[in-house]
Amino acid sequence: MFNKFFNPKSVAIVGASNKPGKVGYVIAENFSKDYNGNVFFVNSKPNPIFGKIPYSSISKIKDSIDLVIISVPAKFVPQIVEECVNKKVPSIVIITAGFSEIGLEGKKLEDKIKKTISGTNTRIIGPNVVGVYNPSTNVDTVFLPKDRMNRPKKGNIAFISQSGAVASTIIDWLAEEGIGISKFVSYGNAIDINESDLLEYLGNDKETKVIAVYMEGIKSSGKKFIETLNKVSKKKPIIFLKSGKTKSGSIAASSHTGSLAGSSKIYSTVFNQFGGIEALDWEELIDFIKAFSLQPLPKGNNLLIITNGGGFGVLAADEAERQNLNLKPLSKSTIMKIKNKIRPNASLRNPVDLTADSDASMYNIVFNNSISNYDGAIIITLFQVPTLDESIIKIILDMKKSGKPVLCCASGGKFTSKISKIIEGKGIPVYPTPRRAVSSFGTMVRYMKKKKY
Amino acid sequence: MFNKFFNPKSVAIVGASNKPGKVGYVIAENFSKDYNGNVFFVNSKPNPIFGKIPYSSISKIKDSIDLVIISVPAKFVPQIVEECVNKKVPSIVIITAGFSEIGLEGKKLEDKIKKTISGTNTRIIGPNVVGVYNPSTNVDTVFLPKDRMNRPKKGNIAFISQSGAVASTIIDWLAEEGIGISKFVSYGNAIDINESDLLEYLGNDKETKVIAVYMEGIKSSGKKFIETLNKVSKKKPIIFLKSGKTKSGSIAASSHTGSLAGSSKIYSTVFNQFGGIEALDWEELIDFIKAFSLQPLPKGNNLLIITNGGGFGVLAADEAERQNLNLKPLSKSTIMKIKNKIRPNASLRNPVDLTADSDASMYNIVFNNSISNYDGAIIITLFQVPTLDESIIKIILDMKKSGKPVLCCASGGKFTSKISKIIEGKGIPVYPTPRRAVSSFGTMVRYMKKKKY
Repeated sequence: MFNKFFNPKSVAIVGASNKPGKVGYVIAENFSKDYNGNVFFVNSKPNPIFGKIPYSSISKIKDSIDLVIISVPAKFVPQIVEECVNKKVPSIVIITAGFSEIGLEGKKLEDKIKKTISGTNTRIIGPNVVGVYNPSTNVDTVFLPKDRMNRPKKGNIAFISQSGAVASTIIDWLAEEGIGISKFVSYGNAIDINESDLLEYLGNDKETKVIAVYMEGIKSSGKKFIETLNKVSKKKPIIFLKSGKTKSGSIAASSHTGSLAGSSKIYSTVFNQFGGIEALDWEELIDFIKAFSLQPLPKGNNLLIITNGGGFGVLAADEAERQNLNLKPLSKSTIMKIKNKIRPNASLRNPVDLTADSDASMYNIVFNNSISNYDGAIIITLFQVPTLDESIIKIILDMKKSGKPVLCCASGGKFTSKISKIIEGKGIPVYPTPRRAVSSFGTMVRYMKKKKY
Repeated sequence: MFNKFFNPKSVAIVGASNKPGKVGYVIAENFSKDYNGNVFFVNSKPNPIFGKIPYSSISKIKDSIDLVIISVPAKFVPQIVEECVNKKVPSIVIITAGFSEIGLEGKKLEDKIKKTISGTNTRIIGPNVVGVYNPSTNVDTVFLPKDRMNRPKKGNIAFISQSGAVASTIIDWLAEEGIGISKFVSYGNAIDINESDLLEYLGNDKETKVIAVYMEGIKSSGKKFIETLNKVSKKKPIIFLKSGKTKSGSIAASSHTGSLAGSSKIYSTVFNQFGGIEALDWEELIDFIKAFSLQPLPKGNNLLIITNGGGFGVLAADEAERQNLNLKPLSKSTIMKIKNKIRPNASLRNPVDLTADSDASMYNIVFNNSISNYDGAIIITLFQVPTLDESIIKIILDMKKSGKPVLCCASGGKFTSKISKIIEGKGIPVYPTPRRAVSSFGTMVRYMKKKKY
């Protein structure tokens, strides 16, 4: 049903513009470049836009249109939606802001639009959104230019967001980190399609392995939301960043997307009870989706930690305990096998501290001789020490062959960033602190347990 | 008393090496390059090191030596310390690992060394450390090469660390972020100079405005530590990252620097009661020291938040409530003055949401007309939107003239990073999430209140 939003054969942009910097310019530019379907521009003025004279209105276009993108001032929007309904357009994205989020007058405009589409086959995303991005089809209604906001490559993470700004920041960050997405939707005021509709659609979407959600409050009914969450979270991990939790936050939220944000506790309880995963801020959201997107789920909570920096091992062990992970010691037979192959002052507990003068091969020795006793591993590499060279990259990537989840921790300056990007680009997530790596592992364990029972 | 560690006129490196990659090579290289005092190399083999034939022992050097750096296997160290005492060397850094952290035999070596210096004027940092770095004098015993670990520029943050690895990672990160330090010490097993000694010294150090501490457990007596903390924290903020908190963490810590890590709760209570500030991980540690290092302290908890992304405002407001900050609304007279100068759909509550189509000048208008009613501001800028151009840099930097603390939040990809680095390089800290910016502000407020009463 929502397919035309993500795979339209033809698109019309109402409010397309030839003025660089304008919202309607960026969207027109997006569709002029890499999109393969038919594109129509609509503007009341007949000045050419990317070489084409625009149509003066939707109704003047004779071809059928799968997706209409509206970016004109709010007061003109109800009229355009009516034209779309008359033309039997199945999908509309209303980018324009200035509706219920600014007060009663905007609310009236929304009600008018809702009435217009009621009982028809026309569905709406928005208003007050950045819209839709699908890297497979190059459908890109995001009005933030590409030199400001990178677009992520194709991948298996779907991301839906009530707020356009939060969404675009996360999208930009994902692109920068080289993490791919399947689909992105900013759903804003959600006068028609809401988070529950999208969760249901993405639950069945074959390109999507993990779903990330930024919300300030639910737009569907509580019952619908809980039913959907309960059903979809059994298929795929859904990670929520819910803001508008506290009193001040709720006030800010109500002026932002016109949503009445609910009590933090109620949401946390609902997420927890019906299989959702909650992130504390969007840095944590990205930490978690990286792990779920790139790695298999652990089958239990036995975690192996290997480090070349003792202090980092301590920080990791602290977090493992908070996450209820089991740092069971290396078996005696493992210790017998490896102790002469690593540094004499290495610590063969768990965390295994190889010490600062170890080299890459020692990670290999410890991992291969012990991973069969564990459900996954965290590999901590301090690239500041001279004995650890780039051969660690292949060794870490080879750990994927174990079939168990492996997360890395590496932090520091330029050299560290370079190596980390290579490793993460090839499918092993890298975190800048031990706490963040271990907490992501712990979250995978909790999801696996919930899914199972 | 500790001055010779940071400003020595002459240095001897025992275990200096001509083999690239070796610890003794990196240290010899560090002192061969930018250090202005006399440098002596000591090695039992007469092969030239950076063009100089090494001395066969400390006692063969006729000149007086302010600082001896020892990097030879543990079993040789007691003998060398004895030679240093005979030569009346005031300061020794023992880099070598393999002492009490590996067990009884190492502990015996430590006891021997302690006995040797007892009653003398020779003081020791270490063993099991990366040592000392002072950007003012280019004293740099850090054995991690500069292409792996950047050195930060001169600044006002002192950083002491029990763990060398955690320290070097943080140092690398600070350099990468362009944050300057006054002095760095890794104190490891602390058989002589411990964290309390260093806190006392840094409390009186004119180059130091903020002190950061990574510790796994205290090495001085509890009484001494509390007295020192209580005294020094009244002069300067001291931010602790304490690991080895939980059971697993404590086991890891005892095998790392030979420290018996205490209960988390006891430490947190002590920090809190005697003026210390605790960070949850070293990312938070850096967040806090950036704020204290670059900005003045707020005089109260009234915070102004300005954003061009509504969702970010909501996330910031949530955190402000958790931090007990007061987001009092804009005054009526302020609203009257500015409402016609910003976008009609902007939200003039606090957070002030300028909306995505605002430009840089609108930040200026809101800030200048309202900051007199607040104790500080958080400026959230989403550079993904096309209307916000680089003129925001000057506007944000000009906010320093208010004399009030200003922290920024900006996150995203390349463009955002570029602008953020410029702003932070000129003295306004930039955080990647609203939560982290607001939590840093809240920490400054709490410190200010503790200091006052």
